[in-house]
Amino acid sequence: MFLNTDQQWPLNAWYQAAWTHEVEDKPLARTLLNQEVVLFRDGDGKACALEDRCCHRATPLRLGDVVPEGLRCGYHGLVFDGSGRCVIIPGQERIPPQAKVRSYPILEKQEIIWIWMGDPALADEAKLLVDFPWNDDHENWPHYHDMFEIECNYMLLIDNLMDLTHIPYIHRNTIGGGDQKGQVDASMDVTPTDAGVHYIRWMEGIVPPPTYVKGAGFPEGTLVDRWQEFEYVVPSSVLQWTGALEAGRGAKDNREQAGGFNLRLYHGATPKTETSCYYFWTPLNGYKPKDEAATKTLHKEIAFTFTEDLEFLESQQACMAASMGDTFVNIKHDVARLPARRAIERMIRAELAALQAAE
Amino acid sequence: MFLNTDQQWPLNAWYQAAWTHEVEDKPLARTLLNQEVVLFRDGDGKACALEDRCCHRATPLRLGDVVPEGLRCGYHGLVFDGSGRCVIIPGQERIPPQAKVRSYPILEKQEIIWIWMGDPALADEAKLLVDFPWNDDHENWPHYHDMFEIECNYMLLIDNLMDLTHIPYIHRNTIGGGDQKGQVDASMDVTPTDAGVHYIRWMEGIVPPPTYVKGAGFPEGTLVDRWQEFEYVVPSSVLQWTGALEAGRGAKDNREQAGGFNLRLYHGATPKTETSCYYFWTPLNGYKPKDEAATKTLHKEIAFTFTEDLEFLESQQACMAASMGDTFVNIKHDVARLPARRAIERMIRAELAALQAAE
Amino acid sequence: MFLNTDQQWPLNAWYQAAWTHEVEDKPLARTLLNQEVVLFRDGDGKACALEDRCCHRATPLRLGDVVPEGLRCGYHGLVFDGSGRCVIIPGQERIPPQAKVRSYPILEKQEIIWIWMGDPALADEAKLLVDFPWNDDHENWPHYHDMFEIECNYMLLIDNLMDLTHIPYIHRNTIGGGDQKGQVDASMDVTPTDAGVHYIRWMEGIVPPPTYVKGAGFPEGTLVDRWQEFEYVVPSSVLQWTGALEAGRGAKDNREQAGGFNLRLYHGATPKTETSCYYFWTPLNGYKPKDEAATKTLHKEIAFTFTEDLEFLESQQACMAASMGDTFVNIKHDVARLPARRAIERMIRAELAALQAAE
Repeated sequence: MFLNTDQQWPLNAWYQAAWTHEVEDKPLARTLLNQEVVLFRDGDGKACALEDRCCHRATPLRLGDVVPEGLRCGYHGLVFDGSGRCVIIPGQERIPPQAKVRSYPILEKQEIIWIWMGDPALADEAKLLVDFPWNDDHENWPHYHDMFEIECNYMLLIDNLMDLTHIPYIHRNTIGGGDQKGQVDASMDVTPTDAGVHYIRWMEGIVPPPTYVKGAGFPEGTLVDRWQEFEYVVPSSVLQWTGALEAGRGAKDNREQAGGFNLRLYHGATPKTETSCYYFWTPLNGYKPKDEAATKTLHKEIAFTFTEDLEFLESQQACMAASMGDTFVNIKHDVARLPARRAIERMIRAELAALQAAE
Repeated sequence: MFLNTDQQWPLNAWYQAAWTHEVEDKPLARTLLNQEVVLFRDGDGKACALEDRCCHRATPLRLGDVVPEGLRCGYHGLVFDGSGRCVIIPGQERIPPQAKVRSYPILEKQEIIWIWMGDPALADEAKLLVDFPWNDDHENWPHYHDMFEIECNYMLLIDNLMDLTHIPYIHRNTIGGGDQKGQVDASMDVTPTDAGVHYIRWMEGIVPPPTYVKGAGFPEGTLVDRWQEFEYVVPSSVLQWTGALEAGRGAKDNREQAGGFNLRLYHGATPKTETSCYYFWTPLNGYKPKDEAATKTLHKEIAFTFTEDLEFLESQQACMAASMGDTFVNIKHDVARLPARRAIERMIRAELAALQAAE
Repeated sequence: MFLNTDQQWPLNAWYQAAWTHEVEDKPLARTLLNQEVVLFRDGDGKACALEDRCCHRATPLRLGDVVPEGLRCGYHGLVFDGSGRCVIIPGQERIPPQAKVRSYPILEKQEIIWIWMGDPALADEAKLLVDFPWNDDHENWPHYHDMFEIECNYMLLIDNLMDLTHIPYIHRNTIGGGDQKGQVDASMDVTPTDAGVHYIRWMEGIVPPPTYVKGAGFPEGTLVDRWQEFEYVVPSSVLQWTGALEAGRGAKDNREQAGGFNLRLYHGATPKTETSCYYFWTPLNGYKPKDEAATKTLHKEIAFTFTEDLEFLESQQACMAASMGDTFVNIKHDVARLPARRAIERMIRAELAALQAAE
């Protein structure tokens, strides 16, 4: 097990299935929590999710077409609406009631299509714990959305984000360059929350890393006060705000000053299987919002940085799978990672307990 | 299970192992019904089939050479004749009686090499139920043979051929173009046979599909009477005759008129494993038999059409394997597919019953 | 099973992990006897081997860097010395005693890095049974080292070397060309040894094979006396000396004459998994030691010859794995192969017996 629970994820929770712009006029297939799902927009433009299997002969519906009545199977032309009901069987008048496929509750908010993979009766917008309003504010926080498929358990990606002392090692040529010791020895303020854990790290008067220099145009020799603020929200989101201002500008008291360098990042890690996940991410340009080229460069730099992580995450996954019985040794820098693990495990255990109580 | 029987195929039956022309002066390896087989021609030109494993050190015989005495292992030079007996051990006089490999009964007829994978004592030419004499008639039915390997259970391919309402969907740009509704609503006449099931569909006065127009040169605006005649013969053959004549020429009463468009097709689906098969096929040009270019074009068009099916069959296979416990919903158009399924399942059950009776 | 023992190899033995020159300033990962190992040189230049898994979060150490204090994990910077002890945790003073990884005993001798994968308490230089001093003598036996990864059980490679009647078949265009019958009928003198088995084959007055003609420049029509001397040393080494002198020069009485053609070869077959191995090999030029181009050509020719074996070994492996229950038929030419098999099986059984006695 990658988590200290038999079950690797809560079922009754909202997960990111896609970015809003990914679902347009064609069906989009995703494997979510081991289930094959197909997303499409119905005649009203509403995003819908069905199991990706026609009830007639088990053909994946992703090979079909979006038509006004719903999603049409590409093999023999059966059409299913957003609720999963078969509404057309070509050449056949009567549609038997068992002609249907499973549908999944969907929420669209802040450019994210959220899906509920568990008991539909429990799906409730109030249970969406993530709020990331900057996604809707392209004027002040311009950004592009992206997604990587990673061959690792989703919590290895959360682990990665919850311990930034990896930055001076994995990312020494990008966001982790400059003052290695300063980064390892950053102050670390960790606060458990109802829905996860929050931390902020400060590195005061350090040499800025290459990515920051490139972005902000800090003159040579500039020292900066750098912050890294992260919040993990169960089951699988991390909200980030990081940046740096020239030392002496009082960043610690007021980070919302013009100039310097800063970005927000939304990270979503949706389980595909126990050993793979979708990594949804978007870096929001908070330092030069009018500068389209800067937004593009930021995206490109972040993409490159994340590919540096990929090799580690996938190798770690393979190594962990092969040595599952072996022990782990926790260190000082696991101070935010461990509460994050406890939060997701708590959520899974609560779900299992509710299930048992209901039986 | 893909079939409603534990066993996925009858063992005591003739299956196509290869086209005649495929076995010449080199060994040809095939995986047939989960068994590794190597085909070759002996000194008399007779096609032979052996298990693809030297009895000395388990080297595949396919890596060896055809020599006058039989098939020579490429590792240490042992030679096996068509009966599987070792006839040469280099440098050794005495050949021990246990030096032998399994051989399989072979029949060659109508350009097909048929193999019997079950009990050799039961192999009998009379049990070959397929008759396709047009394969031997290159003058009136010129054709080329072909084979695709498909990652699906062989019966998914038979299913595909037994329900042609898929044509206006999968093949809408080739043989299924033109009048979609006319194709779905075709008349359908189904007759169970001793060895499977026969059906004929008629679409009268319809717009011909692009492939037919291209082949026959129908002038723009021509309407045609189109037929599709198919017969499934257990365990894994489908015989096809399809075509179209200009409406008003009385095609329904006499299909054997010159002009128009028509072809025969032999389809053989030999199981490789439970989830893969060899698809042997050959389209025979019945409308312009003297026109070599037309025969080539027909072959190319049919090859392209079949690749349209491949994606569906392989995706259906994967989806079915992942959702084996789920139900299927039959529809009106399964009217020929279901008797085909019943025929193969009947054959498998009869074989199992005979086996139990013998014990 | 590929061997007639449940266990496929002795654990308490020295195996080649690498050539000396392969381990320099970067970590080198190998899978040895199913265990993931990483090799590196410590600050004193001593070769060390650790399990390839950081004890913190199961990251493979091969992704890290060699630093003066040892091997640094590339994820969060923990450093391990050659004994496997963690010596640095960045930003943390106290290092808990459980922060360590497994280390493996290492021996460096004759350009080979030997590793002991079993009980470290039993590791003893005296148990290294291989002696190949020519590896250290680049003046008289110039050579290059090489390694192939092969998808076969290591003993299939040993089998290959212990029955050279495969040469006129697999290698008929290289070292097995010329007089096929002369090679099959070579005299064969087999002597079991304490640590394996030794044999020498003589082919007197035969046409030399293409590789020998190319190497030695024998004029057309020359006949030669050719020898092949091989010794298998448990668990996985084969020492070879082969060559040919012009017939009439009395090669059988004195092989150490100038001229003709001769080479030594060290073969090491280290198990990776039950179905794969590393094949370490080096051909030593004993016939034109001053001729650098000849050494290079020899290496290239041998490399090509070995690739001819690869296809057979990997196909044999696959075939054997699929037909494990089937019997094998031994032939006359297994006269050296069978004692080699008995020697390794004896060694494995002795290890298992010692283990049981200790319990």
